[in-house]
Amino acid sequence: MKKLTERLRAFADARDWAQFHSPKNLSMALAVEAAELMEHFQWLSEAESHELSDEKLAEVTQEMADVFIFLVRMADIMGVDLEQAAWDKLAINENKYPADQVRGSAKKSTEY
Amino acid sequence: MKKLTERLRAFADARDWAQFHSPKNLSMALAVEAAELMEHFQWLSEAESHELSDEKLAEVTQEMADVFIFLVRMADIMGVDLEQAAWDKLAINENKYPADQVRGSAKKSTEY
Amino acid sequence: MKKLTERLRAFADARDWAQFHSPKNLSMALAVEAAELMEHFQWLSEAESHELSDEKLAEVTQEMADVFIFLVRMADIMGVDLEQAAWDKLAINENKYPADQVRGSAKKSTEY
Amino acid sequence: MKKLTERLRAFADARDWAQFHSPKNLSMALAVEAAELMEHFQWLSEAESHELSDEKLAEVTQEMADVFIFLVRMADIMGVDLEQAAWDKLAINENKYPADQVRGSAKKSTEY
Repeated sequence: MKKLTERLRAFADARDWAQFHSPKNLSMALAVEAAELMEHFQWLSEAESHELSDEKLAEVTQEMADVFIFLVRMADIMGVDLEQAAWDKLAINENKYPADQVRGSAKKSTEY
Repeated sequence: MKKLTERLRAFADARDWAQFHSPKNLSMALAVEAAELMEHFQWLSEAESHELSDEKLAEVTQEMADVFIFLVRMADIMGVDLEQAAWDKLAINENKYPADQVRGSAKKSTEY
Repeated sequence: MKKLTERLRAFADARDWAQFHSPKNLSMALAVEAAELMEHFQWLSEAESHELSDEKLAEVTQEMADVFIFLVRMADIMGVDLEQAAWDKLAINENKYPADQVRGSAKKSTEY
Repeated sequence: MKKLTERLRAFADARDWAQFHSPKNLSMALAVEAAELMEHFQWLSEAESHELSDEKLAEVTQEMADVFIFLVRMADIMGVDLEQAAWDKLAINENKYPADQVRGSAKKSTEY
């Protein structure tokens, strides 16, 4: 992920795009990409969403890449260590959603 | 990222949540988390978004962790290698946005 | 809708909030509210989403109100007539999706 | 708005699209349209977002129409009276954000 972070920084700098990459703007770009990813699934049933054609899967993969790219870029701009943040959040959620109390409940699966 | 993927799988399995984790549902959860991240910035100026308090930064970091967690989980469910997908997308974008043609243009900075 | 528009203008003015209500910021607020609405449905099946409890329906109704309020406010700020815009868009879509060519196809139902 | 509601119902029925229009799916479509609207503003400054070209304004107006159309359609499917819901929500917010306590504060302008 470190190499990817550096690559994105070089990519933006070569295009003089850092000026547009405020956390505010990047959060918008991230949300837009997440919506573009979701758009592929909006009229599919859940079962269909598990069985994409190769062509559709390739498109979806590119949208997931876009989300990942903006997330890594935003983390770089804000000085956030994404992987550490994810492990920290998981430790919180272990306490918040004890396995033996929420098993099989959709009500609580809204968060990791 | 491989360890994180496995940890998320174990977390969901221990709670019997895999049944809810269709690609369709995960794309919704991802978009919801991206919006929660964005919410922190909606009334801030771009300059203010660069200067968060420590408390606010901690909250924003947790929201970024949530986005990352659902993205990694979705990639696992769909068999997508996120880092490979990001590098592949960057190769496409190198051709799409040649540095010497788009320098400093916001019109083209909508994509990496 | 005209009365609602005027009421929202008075509400914002009384709080000196117009300064925050740029089209950019309002588009973010609208997207955030749309995500909060969607969050209620993310772990439900489609069938379950048709059968909300009264309590849940009341919450969803409030989220729909929030989306509507920011949309009406944004239209006011931008000088857009929402109802006229909707009728204009429907005329476009009538031509784009002829009923006898797209009947029952999810591929095309992504747009009105 | 009643005529628009009926028109959207007829439009969907003529195409046999009601089968896809579960509240869950419509909430996704609404969020996707809100993101498409927001995309126009993501790299603009707030000042620029107030000064769109005629061409850009026409595009933005169409996106606002899309958001409105899915919101009205969703309200019809769920039996929600949008205008009543908005007035009810405003009454709540009058109490939640007393004008003389929140004047000029961005912290509280996150909600109407």
